[in-house]
Amino acid sequence: MKSRAAVAFGPGQPLKIVEIDVAPPRAGEVLVRITHTGVCHTDAFTLSGDDPEGLFPAVLGHEGGGVVVEVGEGVTSVQPGDHVIPLYTAECGKCKFCTSGKTNLCQAVRATQGKGVMPDGTSRFTYEGKPIFHYMGTSTFSEYTVCAEVSLAKIDPKAPLEKVCLLGCGVTTGLGAVHNTAKVKPGDNVAVFGLGGIGLAVVQGAKAAGAARIIGVDTNPAKFDLARAQGATDTINPKDYDKPIQEVIVEMTDGGVEFSFECIGNVDVMRSALECCHKGWGESVIIGVAGAGQEIRTRPFQLVTGRVWRGSAFGGVKGRTQLPGMVQQAMRGEIQLDPFITHNLPLEQINEAFDLMHRGESIRTVIHF
Amino acid sequence: MKSRAAVAFGPGQPLKIVEIDVAPPRAGEVLVRITHTGVCHTDAFTLSGDDPEGLFPAVLGHEGGGVVVEVGEGVTSVQPGDHVIPLYTAECGKCKFCTSGKTNLCQAVRATQGKGVMPDGTSRFTYEGKPIFHYMGTSTFSEYTVCAEVSLAKIDPKAPLEKVCLLGCGVTTGLGAVHNTAKVKPGDNVAVFGLGGIGLAVVQGAKAAGAARIIGVDTNPAKFDLARAQGATDTINPKDYDKPIQEVIVEMTDGGVEFSFECIGNVDVMRSALECCHKGWGESVIIGVAGAGQEIRTRPFQLVTGRVWRGSAFGGVKGRTQLPGMVQQAMRGEIQLDPFITHNLPLEQINEAFDLMHRGESIRTVIHF
Repeated sequence: MKSRAAVAFGPGQPLKIVEIDVAPPRAGEVLVRITHTGVCHTDAFTLSGDDPEGLFPAVLGHEGGGVVVEVGEGVTSVQPGDHVIPLYTAECGKCKFCTSGKTNLCQAVRATQGKGVMPDGTSRFTYEGKPIFHYMGTSTFSEYTVCAEVSLAKIDPKAPLEKVCLLGCGVTTGLGAVHNTAKVKPGDNVAVFGLGGIGLAVVQGAKAAGAARIIGVDTNPAKFDLARAQGATDTINPKDYDKPIQEVIVEMTDGGVEFSFECIGNVDVMRSALECCHKGWGESVIIGVAGAGQEIRTRPFQLVTGRVWRGSAFGGVKGRTQLPGMVQQAMRGEIQLDPFITHNLPLEQINEAFDLMHRGESIRTVIHF
Repeated sequence: MKSRAAVAFGPGQPLKIVEIDVAPPRAGEVLVRITHTGVCHTDAFTLSGDDPEGLFPAVLGHEGGGVVVEVGEGVTSVQPGDHVIPLYTAECGKCKFCTSGKTNLCQAVRATQGKGVMPDGTSRFTYEGKPIFHYMGTSTFSEYTVCAEVSLAKIDPKAPLEKVCLLGCGVTTGLGAVHNTAKVKPGDNVAVFGLGGIGLAVVQGAKAAGAARIIGVDTNPAKFDLARAQGATDTINPKDYDKPIQEVIVEMTDGGVEFSFECIGNVDVMRSALECCHKGWGESVIIGVAGAGQEIRTRPFQLVTGRVWRGSAFGGVKGRTQLPGMVQQAMRGEIQLDPFITHNLPLEQINEAFDLMHRGESIRTVIHF
């Protein structure tokens, strides 16, 4: 079928709104009509050309919500009319990872997903007869997209898709990093590096967890009001200090924080985030995605004296098992999504969403089709 | 009083056996007659001059056992005749760290200990009238030494000091890293980098914990028999492969180990140890002490995809609370110390112990006075 889509034809180029062809879902696949999608830094990262695994031309987008239109052979968990959130972290429920009880990193479709194709090795997208790559198993920048069944969370049809689409990436990642990965406890001190969508979600999650001090760190003070509204008790700008920000935080907290979160993707900030943790028990969680070939570094003494360095992908959340419950939490107001939505735009203006993000003026722009 | 001691007069020089003067214990201090001491790589590291915090002249040694001779004012937990193991990781029971329930890194005497003096800022050791530094709060290379009360674990007087002295450092560090820091569970796969005293203790601990595969890694195959005797199921030499050893281990274990331990102090090996861990849940524990200024590094993707990087000091063991129980375990044969003791020498031959260690011919030499 025909579908309006914002296609990334090459690195560094604006997306082009075109009509593409979407082939029917094959076995184990589902055709979804996307109603809304967020625009995330990871889309911008791939579009910039800095992502070494980025493929072009491609339909980007990975933070969407929509309605099932058609299911392929053997699909049993969803049917036409179901509301779904596409998952870039699938959950097959059967692989070594899914059954480990230790991780959400299902590997069922990982290899083909990374190559921009469906599990059978082919694409469902074409433009003027030539194939276009899928992206992160989701490709939510197209009105119609095809996802693997294992890459869809079925959610309450009463949930507002224009808001809960944000649970497809940033908000879930931040909240999950707090609750699943770090397991922040009441009274803990927390530092959050980077106050974009994920950082704000971390702040919201830390407040919900009962953290004592929540220190928001950003070089753009325009973010501070939003962070304080979400629960940050302190907001600091590294540019205001003539010493490393980790030293500032260690002094502010009598030895360092229990947990820190890096929500930027900057390897130097990752080091600061680790080193602002309390000796003996502080843990730092890397959420941001760094550029190709970049490396984190620190003195091993930082770890030998009790700090822990870990990471989080999609907040450790199992999409099909846990995301529906988070959607319910959002409907009950236990998870607040409104603060993240600073802009709404139609698909035709999606490049403006990228511009707003690059200028630091938006948290999330939600695109509607 | 007069005391025979092996004094480190300068970096890179052999120890010199001399008679030093030991002043009586002051308030909160205890005079101990050391009967036995192990010689550990950390002593050699400091003696080499590579330790940026190394001070000279000093009485080194931190893996000893002995008998209390005299107590200073206010000391209540030990009395003359008690058998003790000096602790380089004190346990005051009162500081923020001791009361946290999260770490063994008591800070009560940390600052002065690092400066080579007693908590009041002075030394109890002199040679020809000039002060000699203490070392790690223990200085077990002297027949008589003075320790802070909080730096002494009181142990069963029936325990053989010529063996349980090893619980003062290496064996406890290795076993504790397995049981306290990593918490290895039955069926886990484990990789151990470096099969010296600590590495062998990790192997022994992993076997006790019920690990499935225990992969010992060393560039010196002479260590392999001992490692297998302690429970290693595989022993591999990185020199035998033309690819990174982490890749070899990932292939051997269908994706990587649940836990790895770096027992050398080499930052490149620390990276290999992290990267041989299983995606999604593998954890690497740094035990070895790296040279001054050296840094660990890896791609953050390693952590974002679920690996965890942590460290362990003295195996996470609280010396006064937990070490007496470990001595009992050794007496019951649940902890085996004999395999570690490859040589016994009198104090006068202590430099031979260093030579044996440097040539890779010993695990531990126990010095007797």
